[in-house]
Amino acid sequence: MKNIRNILNSRFKRNGNFFIQLTEILGFKPKKIKVYSTAFTHRSMNIKDGKGNAVNYERLEFLGDAMLSSVIASHLYLEVPSGDEGYLTKMRSKIVSREHLNELGRDLNLIDLVESKIPSGQFGDNIHGNLFEALVGAIFLDRGYKYCEKFIFKRVIIPYVDIETLEGKVISYKSLLIEWCQKEKKTFRYNVYEDTGNDEVRHFSVKLSIDDKVIAKARATSKKKAEEKASKRAFFAFQKRMSKMI
Amino acid sequence: MKNIRNILNSRFKRNGNFFIQLTEILGFKPKKIKVYSTAFTHRSMNIKDGKGNAVNYERLEFLGDAMLSSVIASHLYLEVPSGDEGYLTKMRSKIVSREHLNELGRDLNLIDLVESKIPSGQFGDNIHGNLFEALVGAIFLDRGYKYCEKFIFKRVIIPYVDIETLEGKVISYKSLLIEWCQKEKKTFRYNVYEDTGNDEVRHFSVKLSIDDKVIAKARATSKKKAEEKASKRAFFAFQKRMSKMI
Repeated sequence: MKNIRNILNSRFKRNGNFFIQLTEILGFKPKKIKVYSTAFTHRSMNIKDGKGNAVNYERLEFLGDAMLSSVIASHLYLEVPSGDEGYLTKMRSKIVSREHLNELGRDLNLIDLVESKIPSGQFGDNIHGNLFEALVGAIFLDRGYKYCEKFIFKRVIIPYVDIETLEGKVISYKSLLIEWCQKEKKTFRYNVYEDTGNDEVRHFSVKLSIDDKVIAKARATSKKKAEEKASKRAFFAFQKRMSKMI
Repeated sequence: MKNIRNILNSRFKRNGNFFIQLTEILGFKPKKIKVYSTAFTHRSMNIKDGKGNAVNYERLEFLGDAMLSSVIASHLYLEVPSGDEGYLTKMRSKIVSREHLNELGRDLNLIDLVESKIPSGQFGDNIHGNLFEALVGAIFLDRGYKYCEKFIFKRVIIPYVDIETLEGKVISYKSLLIEWCQKEKKTFRYNVYEDTGNDEVRHFSVKLSIDDKVIAKARATSKKKAEEKASKRAFFAFQKRMSKMI
């Protein structure tokens, strides 16, 4: 028990690692750091508050899920005036899909901040999305709706939400990228290498360079998948310029 | 077409009936009155904006539903620290149930404000809840999250959300009320009379008096139902004092 308290206390320090990493992820300084500590506490820690209530990120997931839904709803409402209720509902569920939330959480490396008694290799994929939701819930409690909205814009809407893509108008990001490079007279190179590491299944990594500058990296179970993933990331990096092609 | 424009233009007047009734429902002065006009325009009016997009309350329902979910989620999160994710989800779905939203819309008489080509008697029950959701969506667009939250507190949470009741701990409001009156040494009377009016089914109205003062009224298809409904309303009127009994 003393051990757990030590871990938690170290989190509250304003110059500690947790605080620094968190500030980087958030893009602003957290105020109620205790709420964020809860957002990264796994149930296996078995922590209770003074009244015997469980302290872990699961309740914050509920809150974050609601905030994500609202922010995305208002964005879609304003962004797509031609979309009816059914369209808006469908688009939102694509954006907040389990798969997408997992990707968001993984990209931010949220799992690095988790306090858990379970080795991180034993978590399923969903922990990434769950932590992302919990983090959004914590932002709401710490700073209110406006900050929550800003964070979701920065981390979800700007980098990932492209209506054309969601409507399935883009079939292959690799072909889109190649076409764009040719049009803009840019050179490109996919540098693929085997990178299985400690995984049981064979994995490949790819570095995508445009004009000899590495633009995006990705890792997947096939060369093709890794290339597509890197192309998608490059697409979002160049979103405004490239989306004129669609 | 001209006729429709006239109807809509008359709504924008700051001294018109629509504006006055709306201000009373909202508890504050609406700014972007056009948004509220959309919130009370039925699809049967077949109105389009300059770009050909349908103008009616259906998209606002989507937005309002999301805002309701968020505000209720954050209220439950803070109010019930012992409730886990499953509990919070279940409680929220009770509060924003179709039946409950219909009741909220009906109590505010929102249907009186609707512009529609369908006679109001031909609408199903759900129009009340749909209008309530659309109104919440309009408040969000007009004044943002904080006002939306205030409105939901005033119209949903304070009068209707009692955790004990939602958990099913109250079985009969009538017995609760009687017990409370006896304890507090107050007299009570249920004054029931037939009040079918133009309805096809027989209806009863009831006036519930406590210490000879009418506290609540209700109308339903049986005497028992009407009494229970009136008792429930009285309960919420006296919520703080009576809930100590549970």
